[in-house]
Amino acid sequence: MREDFQAELDRVSSTLVTMALAVRETMRQASNALLIPDHTLARQVTARDAEIDVLYRVAEDRAYDLVASQQPVAGDLRKAVTSIQVAADLKRMSGLAVHVARSVLRRHPALAVVPELAELFREMSTVADGLAAKIVSALSDHDAVLAAQLDRDDDAMDRLHQRLFAVLLSPDWPMGVEAAIDGALLGRYYERYADNAVNVGHHVVALVTGKSD
Amino acid sequence: MREDFQAELDRVSSTLVTMALAVRETMRQASNALLIPDHTLARQVTARDAEIDVLYRVAEDRAYDLVASQQPVAGDLRKAVTSIQVAADLKRMSGLAVHVARSVLRRHPALAVVPELAELFREMSTVADGLAAKIVSALSDHDAVLAAQLDRDDDAMDRLHQRLFAVLLSPDWPMGVEAAIDGALLGRYYERYADNAVNVGHHVVALVTGKSD
Repeated sequence: MREDFQAELDRVSSTLVTMALAVRETMRQASNALLIPDHTLARQVTARDAEIDVLYRVAEDRAYDLVASQQPVAGDLRKAVTSIQVAADLKRMSGLAVHVARSVLRRHPALAVVPELAELFREMSTVADGLAAKIVSALSDHDAVLAAQLDRDDDAMDRLHQRLFAVLLSPDWPMGVEAAIDGALLGRYYERYADNAVNVGHHVVALVTGKSD
Repeated sequence: MREDFQAELDRVSSTLVTMALAVRETMRQASNALLIPDHTLARQVTARDAEIDVLYRVAEDRAYDLVASQQPVAGDLRKAVTSIQVAADLKRMSGLAVHVARSVLRRHPALAVVPELAELFREMSTVADGLAAKIVSALSDHDAVLAAQLDRDDDAMDRLHQRLFAVLLSPDWPMGVEAAIDGALLGRYYERYADNAVNVGHHVVALVTGKSD
């Protein structure tokens, strides 16, 4: 029984890895669409969201099947439910990538990110990609230490977010209100993406160790 | 067995009602703190978040106990897990109320909402409160019809959100970049609050009918 549980949980977990890879790729594409800029790519990102949704359903169904067939208790039960929460966090991350892509489409053919902010958003997208990469590894390798690092990695995003606001609110910001609002909202999408990555980290720690976070 | 399940699920559900009431009150206070403005009230809101967190843990633990003791399958199992997802949605709504309150604290003693936007945010806070009130009723009365209405009610928030951006981006916006960014971010907090309310609605439909949303 115990081995069946672990085998089925591994199946759920492998769906989560697939989902995390897809989420990472979605945000990479969204960032490229933003920074190149490339509105065709942005449109592809909005279409990818449906794939992530399918993967979410697969992960959720597998987790439910696992609980139904194995009737786990205590720590094992929490692991099964936590895997659904990871899937929901990943879905939210994908949703934020779509928000980035929609900003590109909304401003097209103008730039959604003015040149003054391009370098900052390049750094934010690098941090976002690093967080997603770490989620993939932590999930693949059942690595709670790696998962726990996401908390600290998020500090880099918070610092970039603060720098962004310092630029937007400096008295000599030259680009006007619309560019400032776009910058502020895009900054928030990246910041929320990172926050959700931290949530995934907490959940993966719970998933690996069986302790509630 | 079946009756015990329902009795225990009702216990989880009553915690969710308590949580929804607390979330509603938290956003009411945050909106008042924003519109009066009142930074003491804003500080109280940030403190309330810890209470919501405790209620979240209670709801989650009760749901896990329910699954562990009753070993439900199929629809009943989904109901138990869905109740955890409702608790997580409500926690996110409370987090957004805290974001509103933090905006008040950040700008104090200046206004976080400039007079030009006060009426719009008054309307947004009314819609937000209506959504929360409906969640309380739908959860209390196990009312899937009411829960399903949240989807449509959210349209009012979306319209207000669009009006807000029209004001912020109009060529004769007189208040400068900082007030525009504050307005855009506050608008997003209310919009996300409403989105999470819609999620609760979907989950409550699933909770009442046993069908996955």
